[in-house]
Amino acid sequence: MVFEKIEGLIDAPFTPFLANGDINFAPIPAYAKMLQKNGLKGVFINGSSGEGYMLTTDERKQLAEAWMSAAPEGFKVIVHMGSCCVRESRRLAEHAQAIGAWGFGAMAPPFPKIGRVEELVKYCEEIAAGAPNLPFYFYHIPAFNGAFLPMVKVLEAVDGRIPNFAGIKYTFESIYEYNQCRLYGNGKFDMLHGQDETILPSLAMGGARGGIGGTTNYNGRCLTAIIDAWKAGDLEKARSLQNYAQEVINVICHFRGNIVGGKRIMKLMGLDLGPNRTPFQNITPEEEVQLKQELDNIDFWNHCNIL
Amino acid sequence: MVFEKIEGLIDAPFTPFLANGDINFAPIPAYAKMLQKNGLKGVFINGSSGEGYMLTTDERKQLAEAWMSAAPEGFKVIVHMGSCCVRESRRLAEHAQAIGAWGFGAMAPPFPKIGRVEELVKYCEEIAAGAPNLPFYFYHIPAFNGAFLPMVKVLEAVDGRIPNFAGIKYTFESIYEYNQCRLYGNGKFDMLHGQDETILPSLAMGGARGGIGGTTNYNGRCLTAIIDAWKAGDLEKARSLQNYAQEVINVICHFRGNIVGGKRIMKLMGLDLGPNRTPFQNITPEEEVQLKQELDNIDFWNHCNIL
Amino acid sequence: MVFEKIEGLIDAPFTPFLANGDINFAPIPAYAKMLQKNGLKGVFINGSSGEGYMLTTDERKQLAEAWMSAAPEGFKVIVHMGSCCVRESRRLAEHAQAIGAWGFGAMAPPFPKIGRVEELVKYCEEIAAGAPNLPFYFYHIPAFNGAFLPMVKVLEAVDGRIPNFAGIKYTFESIYEYNQCRLYGNGKFDMLHGQDETILPSLAMGGARGGIGGTTNYNGRCLTAIIDAWKAGDLEKARSLQNYAQEVINVICHFRGNIVGGKRIMKLMGLDLGPNRTPFQNITPEEEVQLKQELDNIDFWNHCNIL
Amino acid sequence: MVFEKIEGLIDAPFTPFLANGDINFAPIPAYAKMLQKNGLKGVFINGSSGEGYMLTTDERKQLAEAWMSAAPEGFKVIVHMGSCCVRESRRLAEHAQAIGAWGFGAMAPPFPKIGRVEELVKYCEEIAAGAPNLPFYFYHIPAFNGAFLPMVKVLEAVDGRIPNFAGIKYTFESIYEYNQCRLYGNGKFDMLHGQDETILPSLAMGGARGGIGGTTNYNGRCLTAIIDAWKAGDLEKARSLQNYAQEVINVICHFRGNIVGGKRIMKLMGLDLGPNRTPFQNITPEEEVQLKQELDNIDFWNHCNIL
Repeated sequence: MVFEKIEGLIDAPFTPFLANGDINFAPIPAYAKMLQKNGLKGVFINGSSGEGYMLTTDERKQLAEAWMSAAPEGFKVIVHMGSCCVRESRRLAEHAQAIGAWGFGAMAPPFPKIGRVEELVKYCEEIAAGAPNLPFYFYHIPAFNGAFLPMVKVLEAVDGRIPNFAGIKYTFESIYEYNQCRLYGNGKFDMLHGQDETILPSLAMGGARGGIGGTTNYNGRCLTAIIDAWKAGDLEKARSLQNYAQEVINVICHFRGNIVGGKRIMKLMGLDLGPNRTPFQNITPEEEVQLKQELDNIDFWNHCNIL
Repeated sequence: MVFEKIEGLIDAPFTPFLANGDINFAPIPAYAKMLQKNGLKGVFINGSSGEGYMLTTDERKQLAEAWMSAAPEGFKVIVHMGSCCVRESRRLAEHAQAIGAWGFGAMAPPFPKIGRVEELVKYCEEIAAGAPNLPFYFYHIPAFNGAFLPMVKVLEAVDGRIPNFAGIKYTFESIYEYNQCRLYGNGKFDMLHGQDETILPSLAMGGARGGIGGTTNYNGRCLTAIIDAWKAGDLEKARSLQNYAQEVINVICHFRGNIVGGKRIMKLMGLDLGPNRTPFQNITPEEEVQLKQELDNIDFWNHCNIL
Repeated sequence: MVFEKIEGLIDAPFTPFLANGDINFAPIPAYAKMLQKNGLKGVFINGSSGEGYMLTTDERKQLAEAWMSAAPEGFKVIVHMGSCCVRESRRLAEHAQAIGAWGFGAMAPPFPKIGRVEELVKYCEEIAAGAPNLPFYFYHIPAFNGAFLPMVKVLEAVDGRIPNFAGIKYTFESIYEYNQCRLYGNGKFDMLHGQDETILPSLAMGGARGGIGGTTNYNGRCLTAIIDAWKAGDLEKARSLQNYAQEVINVICHFRGNIVGGKRIMKLMGLDLGPNRTPFQNITPEEEVQLKQELDNIDFWNHCNIL
Repeated sequence: MVFEKIEGLIDAPFTPFLANGDINFAPIPAYAKMLQKNGLKGVFINGSSGEGYMLTTDERKQLAEAWMSAAPEGFKVIVHMGSCCVRESRRLAEHAQAIGAWGFGAMAPPFPKIGRVEELVKYCEEIAAGAPNLPFYFYHIPAFNGAFLPMVKVLEAVDGRIPNFAGIKYTFESIYEYNQCRLYGNGKFDMLHGQDETILPSLAMGGARGGIGGTTNYNGRCLTAIIDAWKAGDLEKARSLQNYAQEVINVICHFRGNIVGGKRIMKLMGLDLGPNRTPFQNITPEEEVQLKQELDNIDFWNHCNIL
C-alpha cells in the first residue's frame, strides 16, 4: 500500500487531567486549534508525551474520540496504541480505524523487553492488522523500552509482510541510521524525525520532510520555522532557530524532561493541563517558580506558541 | 498491620491459552490441585510467569476469579496487578479484595522506568490502598523492569506509610541485600525468596521461610524438598536437591527461560497450557523434541511434579 | 591559553604490527605521506584505532617518535596518552612535549569507570599538566569507556582550571550536545567532530570546522570532499559523498568495525599493517574474501585513498 | 596440570602510597605479618583493591618483589597482572614466575570490552603461557570491566587448552553460576569465592573452600571465623559473623566502597596506607570523621584485625 507521506511537523500532545486524576476533555478543542494556528499538521496522541501507557483502555478510546471531534479540517489524528498487551493494542487499532483516525502506531513494549527483530515484527504485525486501511508507524524510542534493534533490519523484515507499514517515528540519536532507513528501498518508507533538538541536521543530511515533536506543544512556531527557513535556503536563520529550540530543551532537562516539565510550561502559557500520573513526580510550586524564571531568561514568552 | 508470614513455597502459575489466543480456564482446577499435591502452598497469579502484563484487564479479573474458585481449602491466592497504568492496577486491587484473595502485589512498572525510591513508593501506595485489608507485596524483579533500587531504602520509606505493605517478593541475585531486608526492623517484613536456583543458600544465610517459585510448576516436589531437608538438618540432601533444581534450570535456559520453555514442559508433563502471547516466540516443534531430550537426559520424568 | 583551531580532518592511524606482534615501523613514512596526499591534516596517534591501550609504554613512545620523524611539513601529530594509570599518561605527556608533538589528548579511563565530572577533570588535569605548552584534547568516546558524562559540565569545570585544555574530540551521537559544547563561551573550545558517518549534519548544525576520523585511513578523499563541497555550497554533492561514506561504514560494521575490519582494508589497498593485538579477533582469510567482495560491490577501489 | 586448591581466605591488599604519590614500600612487612596473624593464607596483589591498573609496569614488579620479600613462610603471594596490554601482562607473568610467586591471575581487560568467550580465552592463554609452572586464575569481576560472559562456557573453552588454568576468582552475585562452575568436571577447577558479603551461603551451597577477600584487610578475623564456625557445625555463629561482616560492608558502601573507604579504615586501625590514585576521589577529613563514627556505632574496634 502507498500512503501519503507526512510533510511538516505533527505534535505529540499532553493528556489533560483534572485534579482528581480523571481525564479533562474540556481543553482539547482549544488545544487542537492552538496547535494548528502555530503550524502543526496534526497530533500523535496517546504516546509518551500523552502518558498513553498510563491510561486505561477506555480512557485511550475516549481520548481518541475527543481528538477526532476537536481536530480541524485537514488536521491529522494519529493514534498510538502500543501497550504490553498486544490484544488490547489490536482492539485499539480497530477502534482507531472505526472512528476515522488518519493513522496509527505503536512503540515496542517495555515488557517483555524486545531483543530480536522477529519479536518486534510479529508484535507490529498483529497490531497493524487491526486497522488494515490506515498507515501504521513503528515508534522507535529505545531509551524508553530497551528495544535497541537495528532499524534497517526491521524495515527489511516488514517489507512485503506488513502491507500497511508506513514508516518509523524515529526518536533516537543516530542520524546515520535515520539516513540509512530513509535511503532504504529508494525512500519507500516515511521516516518521521522525532528529536526536536536536531531537526536542522536531519534536514541537511537526509531530506527529512516530516517529524513528530514533543516540545512543539509550546515551541511549535520556532520548530516549524526551522523547516521553512531551510526550504527558503536561509541556513543562518535555520541555525539560529535550532539553537533557540535547544535552549528551550536545555530548560526542560532541568525539570524532568518534556512529560513533566514541558507539561507544566503549558500551564504557564495559559493552557493548564493538570498533573502527571503516578509514578511521574509532578513539578512542585517551588520548581514552577524556577521554571518560569529560566524561561524568562531566554525570553520564551515572545517565542512560544500562541493560544 | 501484622499479617501472617508465608511458610513454604508459593507457585507462580502459567496462564493457559487456547489456540486462538483466548484464556483457557478449563485446566485451572486440575492445575491448582496438582500444585497442592506437590507441596505448594498457593499461587501468585498474573505475574511474569503468568504473562500478566500481556493480559487485558478483564482477562486478569476473570483469571483471578477462576483461581479463587479452583483453589483448595487453605491454598493461598495472591494476585499480581502491576501494570503501566496505576489506575488500572488500583482497580484490580479493589477487585482482588472483593473476590476474597489472600494477598496481592505489584512489580515496578517497566514504563516509565522507575529511577527513584519515591516514585516506586508512591506507585505502591496508590495500589496498596485499593485493598487495604490484604497484605501487599512489592515484587522486585529489576531485570524485567529496570528498577534497580536499593530495597532497604524502599522498606524504610514504606514503613509507617503504607499500612498493608507486607514484604517483598525478591527476585534478584543479591543474597546480601536480601538478608539486609530480612534483618530490617527485627524481621518485620516478609521477605519471599524468588529465585529457585538459590533456595538453599538463602535458607543458610537468612532463615528464609517462604518463597515464590516459577519452576515450581513442574519441579515443585524437588524445590519444596530442599526446605524439608534443610529443616531436618540434612544438608547433603538439601544440596543434592538444589543441584538437581539447577540442572532443570540449566535446561530451560536453553529454551528462552521459564515463561517460554517452562510452559512447554507442562505440556510434556501432560498438562497442556497452550502457547505464549506475542511478542514471546513460542517453542517450535523441533525445539520441543530437543527440550524433551534434554529432560530425558536428567531423568526428569521421575523427579517432576505429579499430576 | 589560546591555541590554533584545527581546520579539516585529522586521521587516527592504525598501528602497524609484524607477524610476531612487534610494532612495524617501516610503513609509517609512506603511511604519513599517503594520508597527506589524500587531504588529511595530521594524525591522532595511539588512540582507539591505533590500539594505543594495547601498547606498552615504550611502544607508545617509539611510535610517537616514528610519526614525528615521518610527518611531512605542516602535518600535525597529536599523541593520545590515555591509560588506566594516570602516572604513565603523565609521563607520556611529558614525552610528547619533549619530542615536539603538535598536541595531545586522553580519553577517560575504562577502569575505574568514571562516574563524576570531578573524577574526569582531575584525571585530565594531571595529564594536561605534563605538556603545559601544548593543546590538550579530551577524547569523548563513552561507548568505549562508560564515561557518559555531560560535556557542557566538563567544559564549565575545566574552564579557568586547566589552562591548556583546547577542546574535545567528540565521538558520540548527540549532535545536540556537540552543538551546545560548540556554543559554550562563544565557541572558545575546539570541538572536533569524531564520527565519520555524520560530518555533513554536524557542518550544517554547528559550523564544525575540524574533525578526527577513523575511516579516513582508507576513505579520506571522500570524507574531506564532504567539507569542500559544503564550503562550496554544493549540498547535493556533500550529501552524495556522505551517503557514500555511510556505505563504506556499513561494510566495516559487518567485520567488527574499524579497528579490525578497517585495518584489513589497508592491506587490500596495498598497505599491509598486519594483525590486531589480542583480544581483538583478526579477520580470517574467509572474511577477507567477503570483505573484498563487499567493497567491490560499492566500487570502493575507485573511491578510496590513493597510495 | 594439577595444582593445590586454596583453603581459607586470601587477602587482596591495598597498595600503600606516599603523599607524593609514589609507592610506599615500608609498611609491607608489617602488613603481611598482620594479615597472617588474623587468619589470612596469602595475598592477591595488584588487583582491584590494590589499584593494580593504576600502577606503572615497573611499580607492579617492585610491589610483587616487596610482597615476596615480606611474605612469611607458607604465605601465598598471587600476582594479578591483568591490563589492557596483553604484552605487558605477559611480561608481568614471566616476572611473577621468575620471582617465585605462588600463583597469578588476570581479569578481563576493560578496554576493549570483551564480548565473546573466545576473546577472553585467547587473552588468558597468552598471559598464562608466561608462567607455565604456576596456577593461573581468571578473575571474574564483570561489574568492573563489562565482561558479562557465561563462566561455564569459559571453563569448557579453557579445559584442555590452557594447561595451567587453575580456576576462577569469582566476584559476582550469582551463587547459581558459581555452583555450576564448582560442579564442572567433578570439581576440577578451583573456584575462589570473591564476595565477602556472602561467604556463608556459598559454603552452604557449594562446599566452597577458599576465597579472596577485600574487606579481609580490616575484617579478616570475622571473615575467617565464618568458615571456622561453619566447619564446626555452628550455623548460628556463622550467621552472626556473616551478619556482622555485612554491617561492615554497609559502612564502606557509604564511602565509595572498599578501594576508597576501606583503605581509609586501615589508617584508622593504625596502618596508614596513604591516598588513592586519581581518578579515585579520596576520603575528605570530614568524611573520615563520619567513617570513624559509623564504625564506632558497630563496635568495630573490638572486631577488626589486630595489628
